[in-house]
Amino acid sequence: MVKLLFSKYIQGVVALMIRAAILEKPLSPIQVHSLSDPILEPGAALLETIFSEVCGTDVHLYHGRLAGVPYPIIPGHINVGRIAQTNGNVKDVDGYLLSPGDVVTFLDVHETCHNCWFCLVAKASTRCPSRKVYGITYGLQDGILGGWSEKIYLKPGVKIMKLPPAVKPDAFIGGGCGLPTAFHAIEQAQVRLGDTVVIQGSGPVGLNAVILAQLAGAIQVIVVGGPSHRLELARNLGADIAINIDTVTPTERIFAIKELTGGRGADVVIEATGSPAAIKEGMAMARDGGTYVVAGQYTDNGEITINPHTDLNKKHLTIKGTWGIDLSHFYRSIQVMAKYHNRFTWEKIVSAHYGLHEVNQAIDDVEQHRILKAVIDPNKKA
Amino acid sequence: MVKLLFSKYIQGVVALMIRAAILEKPLSPIQVHSLSDPILEPGAALLETIFSEVCGTDVHLYHGRLAGVPYPIIPGHINVGRIAQTNGNVKDVDGYLLSPGDVVTFLDVHETCHNCWFCLVAKASTRCPSRKVYGITYGLQDGILGGWSEKIYLKPGVKIMKLPPAVKPDAFIGGGCGLPTAFHAIEQAQVRLGDTVVIQGSGPVGLNAVILAQLAGAIQVIVVGGPSHRLELARNLGADIAINIDTVTPTERIFAIKELTGGRGADVVIEATGSPAAIKEGMAMARDGGTYVVAGQYTDNGEITINPHTDLNKKHLTIKGTWGIDLSHFYRSIQVMAKYHNRFTWEKIVSAHYGLHEVNQAIDDVEQHRILKAVIDPNKKA
Amino acid sequence: MVKLLFSKYIQGVVALMIRAAILEKPLSPIQVHSLSDPILEPGAALLETIFSEVCGTDVHLYHGRLAGVPYPIIPGHINVGRIAQTNGNVKDVDGYLLSPGDVVTFLDVHETCHNCWFCLVAKASTRCPSRKVYGITYGLQDGILGGWSEKIYLKPGVKIMKLPPAVKPDAFIGGGCGLPTAFHAIEQAQVRLGDTVVIQGSGPVGLNAVILAQLAGAIQVIVVGGPSHRLELARNLGADIAINIDTVTPTERIFAIKELTGGRGADVVIEATGSPAAIKEGMAMARDGGTYVVAGQYTDNGEITINPHTDLNKKHLTIKGTWGIDLSHFYRSIQVMAKYHNRFTWEKIVSAHYGLHEVNQAIDDVEQHRILKAVIDPNKKA
Amino acid sequence: MVKLLFSKYIQGVVALMIRAAILEKPLSPIQVHSLSDPILEPGAALLETIFSEVCGTDVHLYHGRLAGVPYPIIPGHINVGRIAQTNGNVKDVDGYLLSPGDVVTFLDVHETCHNCWFCLVAKASTRCPSRKVYGITYGLQDGILGGWSEKIYLKPGVKIMKLPPAVKPDAFIGGGCGLPTAFHAIEQAQVRLGDTVVIQGSGPVGLNAVILAQLAGAIQVIVVGGPSHRLELARNLGADIAINIDTVTPTERIFAIKELTGGRGADVVIEATGSPAAIKEGMAMARDGGTYVVAGQYTDNGEITINPHTDLNKKHLTIKGTWGIDLSHFYRSIQVMAKYHNRFTWEKIVSAHYGLHEVNQAIDDVEQHRILKAVIDPNKKA
Repeated sequence: MVKLLFSKYIQGVVALMIRAAILEKPLSPIQVHSLSDPILEPGAALLETIFSEVCGTDVHLYHGRLAGVPYPIIPGHINVGRIAQTNGNVKDVDGYLLSPGDVVTFLDVHETCHNCWFCLVAKASTRCPSRKVYGITYGLQDGILGGWSEKIYLKPGVKIMKLPPAVKPDAFIGGGCGLPTAFHAIEQAQVRLGDTVVIQGSGPVGLNAVILAQLAGAIQVIVVGGPSHRLELARNLGADIAINIDTVTPTERIFAIKELTGGRGADVVIEATGSPAAIKEGMAMARDGGTYVVAGQYTDNGEITINPHTDLNKKHLTIKGTWGIDLSHFYRSIQVMAKYHNRFTWEKIVSAHYGLHEVNQAIDDVEQHRILKAVIDPNKKA
Repeated sequence: MVKLLFSKYIQGVVALMIRAAILEKPLSPIQVHSLSDPILEPGAALLETIFSEVCGTDVHLYHGRLAGVPYPIIPGHINVGRIAQTNGNVKDVDGYLLSPGDVVTFLDVHETCHNCWFCLVAKASTRCPSRKVYGITYGLQDGILGGWSEKIYLKPGVKIMKLPPAVKPDAFIGGGCGLPTAFHAIEQAQVRLGDTVVIQGSGPVGLNAVILAQLAGAIQVIVVGGPSHRLELARNLGADIAINIDTVTPTERIFAIKELTGGRGADVVIEATGSPAAIKEGMAMARDGGTYVVAGQYTDNGEITINPHTDLNKKHLTIKGTWGIDLSHFYRSIQVMAKYHNRFTWEKIVSAHYGLHEVNQAIDDVEQHRILKAVIDPNKKA
Repeated sequence: MVKLLFSKYIQGVVALMIRAAILEKPLSPIQVHSLSDPILEPGAALLETIFSEVCGTDVHLYHGRLAGVPYPIIPGHINVGRIAQTNGNVKDVDGYLLSPGDVVTFLDVHETCHNCWFCLVAKASTRCPSRKVYGITYGLQDGILGGWSEKIYLKPGVKIMKLPPAVKPDAFIGGGCGLPTAFHAIEQAQVRLGDTVVIQGSGPVGLNAVILAQLAGAIQVIVVGGPSHRLELARNLGADIAINIDTVTPTERIFAIKELTGGRGADVVIEATGSPAAIKEGMAMARDGGTYVVAGQYTDNGEITINPHTDLNKKHLTIKGTWGIDLSHFYRSIQVMAKYHNRFTWEKIVSAHYGLHEVNQAIDDVEQHRILKAVIDPNKKA
Repeated sequence: MVKLLFSKYIQGVVALMIRAAILEKPLSPIQVHSLSDPILEPGAALLETIFSEVCGTDVHLYHGRLAGVPYPIIPGHINVGRIAQTNGNVKDVDGYLLSPGDVVTFLDVHETCHNCWFCLVAKASTRCPSRKVYGITYGLQDGILGGWSEKIYLKPGVKIMKLPPAVKPDAFIGGGCGLPTAFHAIEQAQVRLGDTVVIQGSGPVGLNAVILAQLAGAIQVIVVGGPSHRLELARNLGADIAINIDTVTPTERIFAIKELTGGRGADVVIEATGSPAAIKEGMAMARDGGTYVVAGQYTDNGEITINPHTDLNKKHLTIKGTWGIDLSHFYRSIQVMAKYHNRFTWEKIVSAHYGLHEVNQAIDDVEQHRILKAVIDPNKKA
């Protein structure tokens, strides 16, 4: 049945060109199919994938927890590759004219329209109704628009960035989706030089927030997460304190934060857990007049209870829900990596590489927390 | 028993000078006692009360719902009066040397210490641990430090403001506590010229927020409250739309806000209700990327449930709990009133005047929503 | 020679369709030519001009004082008209599908690319290198892209806004370019509710700043300009004080501002004069720690001297140069006008209407300050 | 004559207790006098000086270039010492009860009144008219209120900070006045993570700005100064690029900044030179839409010319004059030093130690740029 759905992409044996992992529908095993090489529109480019990643969002995608996904779909929204072909002059964001062989990445977010009220008046492009995301809200019917594929079609207008020489593909994919997501969260937090920052969560977003909080001015960074090997990595990445949620109770965690901040609580708390229960705990960890950035609630995992008097009004607390990223976060993330690639070894966030034939295993390993970051390498042979 | 507790203030018949309404303990009927004239410290002043108000906080005070109240207490935190006496040169905030007869008000908040981490480093004086408030956290043991009294003792360092000629005492007390509270909320909201602002609540804070939202740049102000006579006043004060919570369901209210904003929701929502249930509704009324100021949850009325994914994270919503005021809000409120006293008739917010012997009735009338704003006039005779 | 340059637009007698005023080169008399109706690209629209304006920029354009102007050119960057024709579905910014007869305006700024570092990373689209402006940096070779013409070609992607019913064309053109320019300046000023704002200049930008400063929260608006009839209009538009530069010396002006602000100076000063000499005076009018927005220096009129110690560093002064506008300023300006069209009579800013055959006179009248605002009406007959 | 002026402090031989360096009047050689031990008011403390510094301001003080200096005066506004004595309980800003032997510093700024319009409404305490500064605007007639003395009198209410164990006196005084001054400048700059920051000046403020710009998020820090040994230190403190003003012309410097920033200019430029000529150059080094913080113009060294069209308005440039510091800058500076004392060796900024008898030499060495930072050690023997 899959074949029928995207028969226009799947060709006879002779012309088969591109192997891609396709998720037909939620909970269906992902299968590798061969798709024909696309014909490039003017302004488009074709990328040979070097690496794609398995993000927490891909687990949600597999389970069908996200709204607006046009299955069947090729997952993979953060990717790095080599320019294989362009139709006409295609430039990157810095105006650099791209040629075959250039190692590039691109912003997964596309079609934020620059023509609507949200883009133009509210200047809140992450809430643009026309917004589309590679590997998430672009389906197979839209083209080869996901990274779990030997090649990726870059539509005209996609924002491309040539990687600086200091940013290697393995470090870039180690940063992955978590780096710009954390960048946006840190920007929202408006960290002041000298702040104490608590990071809730030690997954890819949390670990990148540990890095960026330091770079943005925090002088005490406390990570609250687990399991222990992730906390060890957090400490290696510069966290001053790591609190293990597997061994320390929520009440003790809040108490510990108070102890570490002269009894006041943290200036800034950043949530990167995906667990609703973290919210009330995070509010309690922030100091009166502090800032709480909620950046990890990407799917609906249920409701929580809060007390609006004690948790919010009397605390004089500011809470900032933070959705998606725009190009500034992505661009600056890469520049930060180019500067600090020696100090922070992003490539160590990667746990294992999987071929296209192993993507189901990769999703399961991520979901079961067996590994921290799974990278998809379409060139890895069976 | 009351007499024993504050015998140092209550004197023999001959020397009795000042009649004051004293709340001995929560839920105890407030009684009028005569207190001896205080001796002024250097830098102190004595005020003859013209008007004090009954604020929603006084209802909480009566019921014992506030933490840190040192009963017995003279309620009344927002006051206007005439300088009766000073010990030495006492100046107002503008440097004006005060003389007997000057009509003044003063900031109820005192002893924000300007010496602690919250005052000096966080610059969040409303969370200063040393903060004291006339009529709320100063008790009778501290002196005649509440406005439901013929006279009020102004301690050295209390921030006094001579009323501009355009601000009459009845308009000032009509603004009352609600005006600077709304001022702080509006400042937190960072209203942009051209915004739609929803005000939840049509009590004194809500009505002042209706006024100030317009003055701060809103071009559509929608008030959600009741009963109908308060909404009528809101409309007279410039609200474009008034939605009656007695006749319109929460779902319909949210739908109405969407209808009035091109389907998007309001740029800014300001909560001034005191009802926890308003919070989830207010979050739903705000547009994606909007701002929600929570300024009405001054006592603990229980918990609420929210969905952190749909209500907060995906909405990219900013929420700002807002506690107390500082002098800037109070000072600028009075300047705004001096400018706009003809356009907005603050005196009409006052429903009735009560003598000291009628304060129990006044509290009950406010609590039962029989009236909008009760003013205490210590000179009103029985 | 003109004919040779734009012969592709100028056709034989039979097919002549559109009369347009063309400035062949700086200081050359503007002449009316007949141009053939353009063929619309998909997504383009054709507008029948109702009104265009003569802005100060047009005087500079005539004198050749602006960089990057591709003469010959049809001037006229702020325009209102009726949709005559569209090629395919063309929507306005609110998503409204446009039809012939709709009365619309459009943002003169086009091709801010949403693809470069300034647009995407710095989010400073007014400094985008690809930025083009109708009637200024689009020349005749680019098409009928100026408003001093019976019709205007709206390229695909031009941001169009259907005028709200409350905004009449004569009020819209009275606001003209000055309204969104003042909107941007006011936004940069971050006026706080209760501020004193000084406006330097009583031309179209200054008068609109007088209006918007009040709406953004100023409670004292002082205009410094001339001649007296402009100041009278400023007073009618709500300025509290008007200081005439023809009769009051610079020293006296600064002294007057100090007198009106308790000796401190204004919280905010907005420059809208075009005269370099105004800068040092404006810095002196601002209070210590205040904000000075420089929005009127649109051409190079020479240098000034300032003292960086006394005028800037010791004053703790913030200065914000402000260039151009983006759609948010234009969109919100129109919404503000829809709300306040009764309170502020923008149509009274218009002094006179000129036909296409009278544009040279219009420029001269504006330059000589004989009139405040000249409107071009292509339908006005000779 | 000196003796007559401050005879009330200078006592007979037997009771002489405190040796202090006194500047009788501008350009007069500073002489060491013996002053009697002061009697402590309640809440006051007496400090045994460990180190004071010679700041650029002290050179201005010597030359009489500062307004409001009440000569004769004991210079020395940034100091570290040991508590010798307190009258009653004296606490530091964190609420720590001080005892003899505690190593502390204190904010030189005192009497920002927390009672005036600037402190309370504008929240601009560095412009408070009551502001007094130890060693600058407090003279000998006010007491032993400067650090070039064996002991320093800490008036009641002076903001004291116990040094964290990680902050040694020699590192603290290496940071000196330049560290909190740079902190304020960096805060004004609102550095975004990923910015390029240019620092004009390689004196104590400039070098601290080099450090803090990195900590606040800059990924490229360029220092423009001299002579070469200071630039070498700047490079050791983390500057990516150092441009020597002794060998590179202003035009070349601006060109170099453009080259290092993709042709655009720096996101942020911070001026810390004291030279008016730096201002126009700094404006040219900033990118369109960038921020320029002017923090080094502490005395009147004359006027400059700028072009308000090209340098300011068309650039859409924000300029922030920055005066003085408040406690938040001082407090957070020390916390930053406690965190990063190993990464940045502030003690290496100190060039030489001088006894009280050598202060004239110290001033001359600083003025002639023979040394970078002179420290006064009152315990250094002749």
